[in-house]
Amino acid sequence: MSAGLSLDELDLHESLGDPVLRSIGFLNEVMGRYPEATSFAPGAPNPAFVDTFDHEPYVRTFLDHVRRRGSLSDTEARRLLFEYGPSRGLINDIIATAFATDHDVDCSPRAIVVTVGAQEAMFLALRALTKANDLLAVANPCFPGIVGAARLLDVSTVPVQDTAAGLDLEQLRATCVAARAHGNRLRACYVAPDYANPGGGRMSLADRRNLLALAEEEDFLLLEDNAYGFIADTEDELPPLKAIDHSHRVVHIGTFAKIGVPGTRVGFAIADQPVHGRGVLADELADLKSMVTVNTSPLCQAVVGGLILSHGGSLRRLGQVKGALYRRNLELLLDALDRHLTPAPTGVTWERPRGGFFVRVWLPVPADTALLEISAARYGVLWTPMSNFYLDQSGDNVLRLSCSYLDPGSIDAGITRFATFLREQAAEH
Amino acid sequence: MSAGLSLDELDLHESLGDPVLRSIGFLNEVMGRYPEATSFAPGAPNPAFVDTFDHEPYVRTFLDHVRRRGSLSDTEARRLLFEYGPSRGLINDIIATAFATDHDVDCSPRAIVVTVGAQEAMFLALRALTKANDLLAVANPCFPGIVGAARLLDVSTVPVQDTAAGLDLEQLRATCVAARAHGNRLRACYVAPDYANPGGGRMSLADRRNLLALAEEEDFLLLEDNAYGFIADTEDELPPLKAIDHSHRVVHIGTFAKIGVPGTRVGFAIADQPVHGRGVLADELADLKSMVTVNTSPLCQAVVGGLILSHGGSLRRLGQVKGALYRRNLELLLDALDRHLTPAPTGVTWERPRGGFFVRVWLPVPADTALLEISAARYGVLWTPMSNFYLDQSGDNVLRLSCSYLDPGSIDAGITRFATFLREQAAEH
Repeated sequence: MSAGLSLDELDLHESLGDPVLRSIGFLNEVMGRYPEATSFAPGAPNPAFVDTFDHEPYVRTFLDHVRRRGSLSDTEARRLLFEYGPSRGLINDIIATAFATDHDVDCSPRAIVVTVGAQEAMFLALRALTKANDLLAVANPCFPGIVGAARLLDVSTVPVQDTAAGLDLEQLRATCVAARAHGNRLRACYVAPDYANPGGGRMSLADRRNLLALAEEEDFLLLEDNAYGFIADTEDELPPLKAIDHSHRVVHIGTFAKIGVPGTRVGFAIADQPVHGRGVLADELADLKSMVTVNTSPLCQAVVGGLILSHGGSLRRLGQVKGALYRRNLELLLDALDRHLTPAPTGVTWERPRGGFFVRVWLPVPADTALLEISAARYGVLWTPMSNFYLDQSGDNVLRLSCSYLDPGSIDAGITRFATFLREQAAEH
Repeated sequence: MSAGLSLDELDLHESLGDPVLRSIGFLNEVMGRYPEATSFAPGAPNPAFVDTFDHEPYVRTFLDHVRRRGSLSDTEARRLLFEYGPSRGLINDIIATAFATDHDVDCSPRAIVVTVGAQEAMFLALRALTKANDLLAVANPCFPGIVGAARLLDVSTVPVQDTAAGLDLEQLRATCVAARAHGNRLRACYVAPDYANPGGGRMSLADRRNLLALAEEEDFLLLEDNAYGFIADTEDELPPLKAIDHSHRVVHIGTFAKIGVPGTRVGFAIADQPVHGRGVLADELADLKSMVTVNTSPLCQAVVGGLILSHGGSLRRLGQVKGALYRRNLELLLDALDRHLTPAPTGVTWERPRGGFFVRVWLPVPADTALLEISAARYGVLWTPMSNFYLDQSGDNVLRLSCSYLDPGSIDAGITRFATFLREQAAEH
């Protein structure tokens, strides 16, 4: 056998040179090597919810629903689980009703596409909306999934500062003006209004309205990522942008990874924008989807459909118990940081988000993979280096702690070791 | 509420203007309106296999396997089903062993990425391999999924004539030379060596070797779609290109939609090409996948993994009973055409493929959607117009009959009505 073909990185698509694409694989790899470490790294849902999960009752609930909905026989209903299905999805009615009920707005099943997680929804929306030279504004720091999707599709991204109050709207306006001056179009802006990953910021109701007005004035769309909205306490809830969008500016992207379980890989987009002479944007997303994944596994959709129906047909109710655990875990994490890191080593600071999974910590030294190896091997603590979450160099000294994956009882012990790690590192320098 | 934003088709990505993207949605829509018609339209697996399918025993078989493989507890094994998982997949070892056993070659789990159907595998391979100005050669006629994927990624396609003996290799060579002369690179060629959809052709062993040699001489890669290879009778089997590829020229793409059930949405790519200084192409595909769908549903992978293990760890054995039914159905279809269409109306001809799901029929008039509506409404027969499968106008008068979805007993009655339809159409003209 000859040595054969060897590919050169320079001969592959340019996105493959971008470290952002390696960020997820890298984390998995490190976690795999230190299975005993306390992991503040993954943004994955708490294992307690996964370990008690059984999909079968939800499949049965969904089958009952479709039998009633379509007067189907048992065989016809079960056939839905295992055949191909429409690219737009099978549970669009259930999601539309849930969104409408939860937020007291209209939502048509026709405006929904069910996707392989929120990631595919972002990917499809970005593909549908952009042509050559179109720009995507993203928060800085930003969820790497949207930046990576843009790289794959050769869409340029423009960073807009993320703050504790969300996107800097004046900077976003200036970005639009600058793009126009260069003959480009700022086509869309990716935004997570509630407890963004990793920034943790939250937009006020007034700022949500201001952002919608700005999108209208400057003629761009909003890709709203709602992954963490469910974590707000009931009295703290704010409407997602889509619920106060009166002019079709928002493509709303949701996931069942956090309010359900990640293993179903089900997400959705609400895309009700009329497309002149055709239909709505969701139709176009479904067409694109037929060339990416054809359709979302109907078996997985059945699990998610049954899960929603079993929680009163409400996504809000589905997320309630989980939201409470994550609020408690975040409180325990912030409290442990206060207790074990006061006084803090020189140059170490952290933020105090009011919700979400994540707390960023600033160090006086680079929070890179070499430092992570030391933290994991000597102190048994894992965290996420943040450089891949920033579009500039400002994240090089930042790490992210996640509260989501840990048992509440192990947070304090983990932060104790994390504090020792930081102090001993400070002493070495 | 204001009228709000209305999008213009011209403002969306160019792929959305291509009818190829509507082809799947269109067929679903017509089938939905004529549920009682005899459907020679879908290339979907036979419902008999779907109706007798139960996923639960296969999930249990997979859980037994992973408990043994990784010394996991029950909880740890079940957790794999519902958590996130590696982008490259969970059942890579099972697929690698099956491919190696079936074809008596080496295959490493590391060279495999598990995908959301074969469609995502094609999409990822195409994205990894192409940069601006790279060309993809495709059979003409061709499976619309690969053409649509190329449109989404702004990759230009070049048609190469498909014949009963597969791709026209001299034309493919000329295409490479012409591309070079224009300063472009023919980067890859999509090929289905066994009973291609829709052409039905099959490459001889000599031509498979010639194609591999041509890829080596002209320096391009082969995207091998193996969806229909399982239909060959045991004594008729030919090795897939990957099994005789000694120089890493082939990315082999497989699907469990036909040998398993479509509803799991599981496929895979074997991409063992070394990438200088990094790893193998499968690693790059996994990185890309992390930005498209993150990972393939582990629950669905468990069903497929259990299915393979329950069939002696062999994809060949998994497909055997199904292959026999499809061979019989194709025989019944060709026999019915002979009996009911001899003598044929003027200008009506059809081919006689030796395997696969499909038979193309040439008409003296356009086989368009208007004609399909007449066929469905008046004669209760559905088929697929072929114009979207051709990259030129030569398919405008061609329709495709599929034998896969029908009960063997209903084929003859369907073709009786189809023959009446053709005769009455001929009489009207």
